[in-house]
Amino acid sequence: MAKTGRICHLLLRFLAFSATLSAVVVMVSSHEKASFFTVSFEAKYTNSPAFKYFVIANSIVTVYGFFVLFLPAESLLWRLVVAMDMVLTMLLISSISAALAIAQVAKNGNNYAAWLPICGSVPKFCNHMTGALVASFIGVIIYLILLLHSIHTVLDPLLLRKT
Amino acid sequence: MAKTGRICHLLLRFLAFSATLSAVVVMVSSHEKASFFTVSFEAKYTNSPAFKYFVIANSIVTVYGFFVLFLPAESLLWRLVVAMDMVLTMLLISSISAALAIAQVAKNGNNYAAWLPICGSVPKFCNHMTGALVASFIGVIIYLILLLHSIHTVLDPLLLRKT
Repeated sequence: MAKTGRICHLLLRFLAFSATLSAVVVMVSSHEKASFFTVSFEAKYTNSPAFKYFVIANSIVTVYGFFVLFLPAESLLWRLVVAMDMVLTMLLISSISAALAIAQVAKNGNNYAAWLPICGSVPKFCNHMTGALVASFIGVIIYLILLLHSIHTVLDPLLLRKT
Repeated sequence: MAKTGRICHLLLRFLAFSATLSAVVVMVSSHEKASFFTVSFEAKYTNSPAFKYFVIANSIVTVYGFFVLFLPAESLLWRLVVAMDMVLTMLLISSISAALAIAQVAKNGNNYAAWLPICGSVPKFCNHMTGALVASFIGVIIYLILLLHSIHTVLDPLLLRKT
């Protein structure tokens, strides 16, 4: 039983690692040239601080996720992993929110501020962006499941066990 | 000693509650009329989905923070509070990041997407926005301290205590 639990746990961590890795790869590989009237420009993630933050945050979580996969089962570091999971999940959530806010303006524009949507001119870039956001979102969901499971195991907040 | 700890804890929670309440009040009360060429428009938080999300998230955390203040010390619900704290801190972080991403575009614009900065036309609105973001950020920092303290107490991740 404990062994099955451990395999499930590692499998979830591997999925989360793959998800954040894909998010980085998809976001970094997204660039598209377009011309706006007479000006030609290249849409890529470095054009917006929010997307740069997204790539950095996802890279950090990917590296962390990779190392945690090789942590031995009896290591005392697993206690630190709960705190680290929490901090890095927050980092990931924050980067997704920022990127999503910018992506929303890129897709729909903002009439009040006279910001025009750009997804019509760079549809491929926008698709990459969406893909990266979805991948990263899957990563966050998995980390949230792992975290709530840890908290449930340690604290039993819903008082399901008798004490 | 336990009593001092409890007073500190309640004081921190009260500060967090005040911070998120201020963020809501400052954001909702921010509106400024301006004219762009011949078009006059009113800048307010409802103009951007990110700011609406910010107000909703901060309101939810404020209401939660208010009720937790009156939870009796011996209540078993305190175990649930750790999990709730975590989820609501994530909600708050996510809303701040989204609002900050939009505020950054409002302040500096984005050359690549041809989005012009608007803070020059509506400086008062931008000041309110900054104030609300700072207040909410203070709230997040306090919730993070509370959370890491809970995790430290329960899990002792840095192994400072002998087991």
